[in-house]
Amino acid sequence: MTLFEADITDQLTYDRDGLIPAIVQDVHTRQVLMMAWMNAEAFNQTRATGEAVFWSRSRGEIWHKGATSGNVQRVVEMRVDCDADTLLLLVEPAGPACHTGETSCFYRTAQELTPQESSTHDV
Amino acid sequence: MTLFEADITDQLTYDRDGLIPAIVQDVHTRQVLMMAWMNAEAFNQTRATGEAVFWSRSRGEIWHKGATSGNVQRVVEMRVDCDADTLLLLVEPAGPACHTGETSCFYRTAQELTPQESSTHDV
Repeated sequence: MTLFEADITDQLTYDRDGLIPAIVQDVHTRQVLMMAWMNAEAFNQTRATGEAVFWSRSRGEIWHKGATSGNVQRVVEMRVDCDADTLLLLVEPAGPACHTGETSCFYRTAQELTPQESSTHDV
Repeated sequence: MTLFEADITDQLTYDRDGLIPAIVQDVHTRQVLMMAWMNAEAFNQTRATGEAVFWSRSRGEIWHKGATSGNVQRVVEMRVDCDADTLLLLVEPAGPACHTGETSCFYRTAQELTPQESSTHDV
């Protein structure tokens, strides 16, 4: 599946690492599920497959979301912001977006970020 | 207004520029309006005022959204993702989020990013 025909990859504004942030929103519930990063290759693979493909900054490799968990995200629409440096993906998720099993990675309010939990992002 | 009491600023994961991305979503319509960046000072000012305050990367200064346009964003809730490196602000906007006058900065689908429009983010 190709979401659109024109080659617009080089019209996106990537950061100095060659990445662009991609917000993922459930197209039906409108819940914001996660934010991840794409390079041009991930963007092209997302277009080519119709499923969300990112660049994993921690692993330094292309990351087909759900390839191992099965929780793929079918991309219904890709939107771009006014200065073309952020993407918004409207998706139908096959399962939870978060590795914790939560539907959305934004499962905590900021006040729930207690000192006791602060170490979780260091592991 | 203080959104919450605990000092959790130092528990957020900032990037090497000391910034953290903040997704802004309309709390009522659930539309994703924009993405901007915060440093610790912007985060603290957002908490202290209850209105969205960002760090303008282009101007290199604190940016109280709507200070000149009047289109402030009242922050109803701040959420944080699993690894504490992205924020989600649920807001009541007083007007359009985008400098173009559009409700959301994501007013184009990716296929609308034509070569003719590509120069708009270079000015």
